[in-house]
Amino acid sequence: MAFAKKIEPGTAVRLAEIDPAYDAGLSKDDGEKLTKDLAKRLDELDDLHYEAGMNSVLIVLQGRDTSGKDGTIRFLLSSLNAQGCRVAPFKVPTPIELAHDFLWRVHAVTPPKGGMTIFNRSHYEDVLVVRVHSLVPEAVWRPRYEHIDAFERLLADSGTIILKFMLHISKEEQERRLLDRENEVQKAWKLNVGDWKERAYWDDYTAAYEEALSRCSTARAPWYVVPADKKWFRNLAIAETLVNTLEPYRKAWLERLEGIGEAAKAELEEFRRSQA
Amino acid sequence: MAFAKKIEPGTAVRLAEIDPAYDAGLSKDDGEKLTKDLAKRLDELDDLHYEAGMNSVLIVLQGRDTSGKDGTIRFLLSSLNAQGCRVAPFKVPTPIELAHDFLWRVHAVTPPKGGMTIFNRSHYEDVLVVRVHSLVPEAVWRPRYEHIDAFERLLADSGTIILKFMLHISKEEQERRLLDRENEVQKAWKLNVGDWKERAYWDDYTAAYEEALSRCSTARAPWYVVPADKKWFRNLAIAETLVNTLEPYRKAWLERLEGIGEAAKAELEEFRRSQA
Repeated sequence: MAFAKKIEPGTAVRLAEIDPAYDAGLSKDDGEKLTKDLAKRLDELDDLHYEAGMNSVLIVLQGRDTSGKDGTIRFLLSSLNAQGCRVAPFKVPTPIELAHDFLWRVHAVTPPKGGMTIFNRSHYEDVLVVRVHSLVPEAVWRPRYEHIDAFERLLADSGTIILKFMLHISKEEQERRLLDRENEVQKAWKLNVGDWKERAYWDDYTAAYEEALSRCSTARAPWYVVPADKKWFRNLAIAETLVNTLEPYRKAWLERLEGIGEAAKAELEEFRRSQA
Repeated sequence: MAFAKKIEPGTAVRLAEIDPAYDAGLSKDDGEKLTKDLAKRLDELDDLHYEAGMNSVLIVLQGRDTSGKDGTIRFLLSSLNAQGCRVAPFKVPTPIELAHDFLWRVHAVTPPKGGMTIFNRSHYEDVLVVRVHSLVPEAVWRPRYEHIDAFERLLADSGTIILKFMLHISKEEQERRLLDRENEVQKAWKLNVGDWKERAYWDDYTAAYEEALSRCSTARAPWYVVPADKKWFRNLAIAETLVNTLEPYRKAWLERLEGIGEAAKAELEEFRRSQA
């Protein structure tokens, strides 16, 4: 089973061919039960990762407005070892950020060994919103696909496990969620007329996402398109992808921890001998 | 005239073929006079660069122990607009630096637009001392040439002017300078038995430098080998290279400043009209 759609390197993505309401035929109840089990395994894997300190984990979250980035982060933070986990949000760049190359602020908050960082939006905005609104000329944004690829290779070569999720919602579901914000008092703080304005660029964003997904999905830093119309299925797909990605490292992390444990025991025994 | 030896991209460097005592047949007096004139032009260019804020300048200083990195920095800081100029020293990496990829700490201190940063040692140590002393396996340091190339391309693409200087001294001159530190009270604080130990690896460093210079000299980030046995000539060669590199930008920087000036004038006139 694979609930998120992994983009195979070198393939051209057509978002229209991926159903945002896909749920693998599961009921919400069954899905939430699966998610709970996966979240438990994820927590355990994350503990090993944190204590072993051999790798870093970088989770990139992208998606249109209302696609569920904040909800996904809330889900992940409730499942993971909060000690080693950070969230890095990328908003409109500040003047000092704009005075540097576009990866400067991104590189600064990459996870250390043993750490996990969730990017709420990311360097991909520099080939998404920047491209859709022509914030810089094409001669500037076009080379960024290669810069991104080289940057992610650098991180991967130093032990970073990279997962990139595009939360995929339908235009209708976005409208429902925007109207919800308007109609429910508790959600109104998220209301932003800019979201309605951005909707006019729906097809431009589709094209920009498709090129980013097609060009920047690599074996070392794959893109996953996550059907996200149903929030419970979105969480399930993300939990499953994370568990499947981290599971192969379990053995190495356990061995490292055993090694650390044995060294500590030997040191303790020597200390006791010296005291005897 | 070109006092520093520019490494043409794609050529194999043989340090033995570059005379560390080269002085272009100049007397010290004549050399210092030339340097003074160049330093004045450099200061002027640096002012334009700082005020125009269109580019960044990155100066990488590498060289064996006693090759004159600190002296070069003192010379540059006395010639440049100190407001926009920073020095970034790279010492033995800290634990948090080691928990990230090798370019993490380097990227963090790259110059903003209008700024100039001098690297005292640099990311090249990760293919120099790290290689000579096998601090990481070859499978780790070998891909770094490509990482460095991609990183410097990223900086150049966002307007960074990059100059890389290898201060080239002879083994005899190094011995003289080390003995000086031993014999002169005022220089003794720089005394470090480690420098004598590193001398035993002279040929290994030569090989490591030659590969770094050969593989990482590009049109956008060229390497210059600076004959550095004579300190006055070293300063002359560096000042000349900097002036020659920055001079072609003068026109664009001046135009930008004129544009800024005219906009300010127009704003002032409108303000006066509104008060009238």
